[in-house]
Amino acid sequence: MANKKIILTGDRPTGPLHIGHYIGSLANRVKLQDMYKQYVLIADMQALTDNYDNPQKVRDNILQVALDYLAVGIDPQKSTIFIQSMIPQIAELAIIYLNLVTVSRLKRNPTVKTEIKQRGFGENVPAGFLIYPVHQAADITVVKGTLVPVGDDQLPLIEQANEIVRTFNRIYNCSVLKEAEAMISPVSRLTGIDGKAKMSKSLGNALFLSDPADVVVKKVMSMYTDPDHLRASDPGKIEGNVVFTYLDAFDADKDQVQEMKEHYQRGGLGDVVVKKRLIEVLNNLLEPMRNRRADYAKDPAAVMKILFEGTDRTREVAEQTMKEVRAAMCLDYR
Amino acid sequence: MANKKIILTGDRPTGPLHIGHYIGSLANRVKLQDMYKQYVLIADMQALTDNYDNPQKVRDNILQVALDYLAVGIDPQKSTIFIQSMIPQIAELAIIYLNLVTVSRLKRNPTVKTEIKQRGFGENVPAGFLIYPVHQAADITVVKGTLVPVGDDQLPLIEQANEIVRTFNRIYNCSVLKEAEAMISPVSRLTGIDGKAKMSKSLGNALFLSDPADVVVKKVMSMYTDPDHLRASDPGKIEGNVVFTYLDAFDADKDQVQEMKEHYQRGGLGDVVVKKRLIEVLNNLLEPMRNRRADYAKDPAAVMKILFEGTDRTREVAEQTMKEVRAAMCLDYR
Repeated sequence: MANKKIILTGDRPTGPLHIGHYIGSLANRVKLQDMYKQYVLIADMQALTDNYDNPQKVRDNILQVALDYLAVGIDPQKSTIFIQSMIPQIAELAIIYLNLVTVSRLKRNPTVKTEIKQRGFGENVPAGFLIYPVHQAADITVVKGTLVPVGDDQLPLIEQANEIVRTFNRIYNCSVLKEAEAMISPVSRLTGIDGKAKMSKSLGNALFLSDPADVVVKKVMSMYTDPDHLRASDPGKIEGNVVFTYLDAFDADKDQVQEMKEHYQRGGLGDVVVKKRLIEVLNNLLEPMRNRRADYAKDPAAVMKILFEGTDRTREVAEQTMKEVRAAMCLDYR
Repeated sequence: MANKKIILTGDRPTGPLHIGHYIGSLANRVKLQDMYKQYVLIADMQALTDNYDNPQKVRDNILQVALDYLAVGIDPQKSTIFIQSMIPQIAELAIIYLNLVTVSRLKRNPTVKTEIKQRGFGENVPAGFLIYPVHQAADITVVKGTLVPVGDDQLPLIEQANEIVRTFNRIYNCSVLKEAEAMISPVSRLTGIDGKAKMSKSLGNALFLSDPADVVVKKVMSMYTDPDHLRASDPGKIEGNVVFTYLDAFDADKDQVQEMKEHYQRGGLGDVVVKKRLIEVLNNLLEPMRNRRADYAKDPAAVMKILFEGTDRTREVAEQTMKEVRAAMCLDYR
């Protein structure tokens, strides 16, 4: 029990979570919460680094993300869900860590470099955005996280956090901070329903966990398949055909998926039939989530209470970490 | 009373304070504490930005700086002395403010540019050092400071803080944060006893408030005067003559100083006579400080208690500020 790994994972509350989140991380969290101590962070402060001018959006999405968590089966009895801005120790740690990282090191971070480009920040990148990997190191270490599920594009963030851990422990001659292991998601990020890019709310190509059944029908019916597959009798392509990508990801009946693929490739299987199968699969997955979501949504105050309780538990752990950090840094005056 | 100005001032605890600090700011604080609400910050977190590898030095100097404060007559009944690292709200505000400032803006700060050069950081400047003006904005605004005594070389720091205040109030459509007015020190920084540079501990040219009487004698006797003034009968120069600079700064008997200057210039007044006068003036100033210091130094725990009480009072004000900040930013979940 003492050496049980501690997971730190979470999301920025900037929009509803989608089935890409589910297959890439949420499904995994539901499993991991039975094996490890798991902290699930609602990263409102990080969301503000590039939404600082729209705090209402961040605020509104805290409840939505929490509902998504509860809907998919993250169990607040097993996982500790907490709100980042309510743990001041994270800010304290981040400020301390900023002394241990050079500006040029931050600028070399490949993940951040890409994101600065994507957001068109250029030289006008907010300082809070450039330093967010340091803030993330604080997120992980404040709960002594040792296992962090990430996409492979996020590995540089774990490296940066571990660099800070090693520097801190070396300079302050202690072993207070723990290095974290990256747990790479086995599923690469899901394509959007347009087949063009990774699923994302901002690209408008997402299928949300909270989408009602009829919206799922509409979205699947509009999905990108094989543009050359004009008649059902024509042979069709599987590669890049989003409907089959999703069946691969979500249909438990792998044999039937295989059969459909072969039928589609040799001709004689219409898009509508395949799409109907996907609708069935997705709605079977989402229906119990919708029900749980609807239950919780009846009492938003109770959902917030779950978050506050998780946050209070996290704060105790965070304060213990800060105590050790202060002692290591000779800042334990009182 | 409601509109009484609020002063935020303070020092980095990196060494004992010297007579340059006294004439440049400490003497003023003793006066200001009767006119305003005054917060005196012991900036240990800021000291760590370039002493992160020597935290014991910072820690040890907290008590020393506090003793210097009490010795010069900063009265904990009138001024609130507090320790920066014990106010987590400062770190929280700093993290929030980092989103409101671009990296290029931070790099353009003339004060920081000069200091980065002086310390030879180059591209390897710790992120914590580059962003310290943001942290300072948090220091000022967390107590709603409206008046900040500074040297004229520190004006860019007040400008940066006020920029953040305006940006915050504009984006979050509020008037929670207050702009601060710079109160430029009427005395330019005191030359060191070597006459070469501004007085500073690191340059080894300082006369400390805690120097015993015999050390004052030794330091004054070794002071830079006029290198061409070889015999008492020779005419001597006043310009750049540190002994006269200090007499100008510390001798209340301006007429006598004027007489001595004229006598020195026309010849017939030896360095030793002038130095003896300065020793008398300085020891008259420092003797009551030494006594108060010795009294307080008997019970270091009582001195720390004064700091803790001031810190606790500051934390209440800081938490009130954070409450208003959280409300303005829609972060007031609970």
